[in-house]
Amino acid sequence: MPAIDTVRIQLPDNRTYQIRIGSGLLDEAASWQALPRAAAAVIVTNDTVAPLYAERLQAQLRAVYARVDLVVLPDGEQHKDWASLNRICDHLLGEALDRKTVLFALGGGVIGDMTGFAAAIYMRGVPFVQVPTTLLAQVDSSVGGKTAINHPLGKNMLGAFYQPERVIADLDTLDTLPDRELRAGLAEVIKYGPIADAGFLCWIEDNLEALLSRDKAVLGYAVRRSCEIKADVVGQDEREQGLRAILNFGHTLGHAIESGLGYGAWLHGEAVACGMVLAADLSHRMGLMPVEFVTRLRTLIERAGLPAVPPRLGSDRYLQLMRVDKKAEAGAIRFVLIEALGRAGLHAVPDTLITQLLADHGAA
Amino acid sequence: MPAIDTVRIQLPDNRTYQIRIGSGLLDEAASWQALPRAAAAVIVTNDTVAPLYAERLQAQLRAVYARVDLVVLPDGEQHKDWASLNRICDHLLGEALDRKTVLFALGGGVIGDMTGFAAAIYMRGVPFVQVPTTLLAQVDSSVGGKTAINHPLGKNMLGAFYQPERVIADLDTLDTLPDRELRAGLAEVIKYGPIADAGFLCWIEDNLEALLSRDKAVLGYAVRRSCEIKADVVGQDEREQGLRAILNFGHTLGHAIESGLGYGAWLHGEAVACGMVLAADLSHRMGLMPVEFVTRLRTLIERAGLPAVPPRLGSDRYLQLMRVDKKAEAGAIRFVLIEALGRAGLHAVPDTLITQLLADHGAA
Repeated sequence: MPAIDTVRIQLPDNRTYQIRIGSGLLDEAASWQALPRAAAAVIVTNDTVAPLYAERLQAQLRAVYARVDLVVLPDGEQHKDWASLNRICDHLLGEALDRKTVLFALGGGVIGDMTGFAAAIYMRGVPFVQVPTTLLAQVDSSVGGKTAINHPLGKNMLGAFYQPERVIADLDTLDTLPDRELRAGLAEVIKYGPIADAGFLCWIEDNLEALLSRDKAVLGYAVRRSCEIKADVVGQDEREQGLRAILNFGHTLGHAIESGLGYGAWLHGEAVACGMVLAADLSHRMGLMPVEFVTRLRTLIERAGLPAVPPRLGSDRYLQLMRVDKKAEAGAIRFVLIEALGRAGLHAVPDTLITQLLADHGAA
Repeated sequence: MPAIDTVRIQLPDNRTYQIRIGSGLLDEAASWQALPRAAAAVIVTNDTVAPLYAERLQAQLRAVYARVDLVVLPDGEQHKDWASLNRICDHLLGEALDRKTVLFALGGGVIGDMTGFAAAIYMRGVPFVQVPTTLLAQVDSSVGGKTAINHPLGKNMLGAFYQPERVIADLDTLDTLPDRELRAGLAEVIKYGPIADAGFLCWIEDNLEALLSRDKAVLGYAVRRSCEIKADVVGQDEREQGLRAILNFGHTLGHAIESGLGYGAWLHGEAVACGMVLAADLSHRMGLMPVEFVTRLRTLIERAGLPAVPPRLGSDRYLQLMRVDKKAEAGAIRFVLIEALGRAGLHAVPDTLITQLLADHGAA
């Protein structure tokens, strides 16, 4: 059996949970033991992941829960909405499942965010477990308790801070991940370098080919280091009063791309990758970073097969979309900018500078 | 100026807020000072309350916030749903209001529950203030941080524990309350006697006529004492791990009546009143209370002009509806029963006993 890495999230009020990272965890009985007791478990997944892993998870959970239901939602960011959330709630209520029922989010970030939000609001809160099956979910969205759905006017605009009981990141599930999704996940891995760990950025640059060829040990390290950084940040600032915002490097413009093109056109990681290139450039234009950093990050993004050129939505549309960003305050658009390699902060940026940036990148 | 009573809610992590109770509070500048600073405030109310009080609240808030919006929802329990919740969210996002925006819930329990839930989920949480204008909201629903919407399959099934910044209970707003709503509010006042304070039950019996004739001093005491009891319970058990469930005396059957007849047919307080009569009888049948208590409570409910006879939905329908109650666990229906005057607890009750009870009350 391969080694299992464990990263611990430590929150206020002695709340704590484990992220377990390793191969074969899905079929490991220990992964599912010592969770909250209940009469029923409900696996929420999508129609892509269900045929691959639902039966195996169900088999494991049947050893723990008398009843294990399955809710299968349509796959894709365009389905991260009220309608899908309602399908989860309709199932729970239709089956009269009680408030001890444990939900299991089996899938990528969309499934994790929606299942977590359903768990947060069903009967004002039931326990849930994250079982991320995409790189993006394993390194980012399954960790830290941000749950949400999209609104036509803005990404992740309705949601809750609600922590899972545990995160089980089985590296073997990445074997079935489409190449495009693997690359999208790498965007969030790359993110952790500039904002928190210059050494990790170098490591990613050195190991990019191994990551792209799915070397399990290299992927395992990327997941673990990403989770460590995220755990550290979330432990200091669960509800994004300050520090946590740095995890949104590349996301201000990224979310605008996703909303602006229609959810699902670009993958979240693709939009974030492109957003990071522009945020790096903004960091340079604001006098925080040398131009070499912009080139370095763009090169890495391009090597990872991720987009570095934003879609041409027009400046006005971009500004309008970014103004509903959760970080915005009283109309001023705020970006996470890199202040030094491994350190980021939130900065209000004048509209004129953003317009210029968008024009120079062919997006205006 | 009449005296202002202040009741303080004390929660874990040093979270605390005030309930201010008195006449004239709506037009009092002090009511709206020292709240979270923001560029915008949004008053959420309904089409009955808006013409009565919205302008006065807007005038007060304009002294504090640069912008004060108004969202007017249709009145009634039947509108406590996703659609109304979405109207609040659509307004907030449509106007690109940021996550410091303060929401003000101006109205009864439906408005308070929905506005609180919208505040809980908009950008994962914005501050809100309760401005209850019904007796029911002043004595119960505006206090303690339970927020929710209804689902066709169950009352208050989707929601969050989310505390307001402050509660402003202006007794003068009760002047415009329809008689039927005043009586419905009295049901929740009566509730506090059997579950927590035998002396308060006697006081209500002695002062019922003064309450029904809207004697301001007597109403003021009823609101204050109700809030004190609720604050005490909620302070010990914010998230209903145990004790807090006693506040749901009469609600198991009450919620079934509301769902079963269609939301809005009976007022919430009416359904709770009837539910208390049956829960009192159950307390007797379970050997906890003498039959005299059942008669005493029924007499008081009837004196208050509240219904004591449940609608004839049929036993099977009642059992089905009560099985989705949030207190239910693994299929067993649990009732809040009175164990002694001023003391209540949660008890699993066999289906056969419930069926017999419903038959004896003409509801089967």
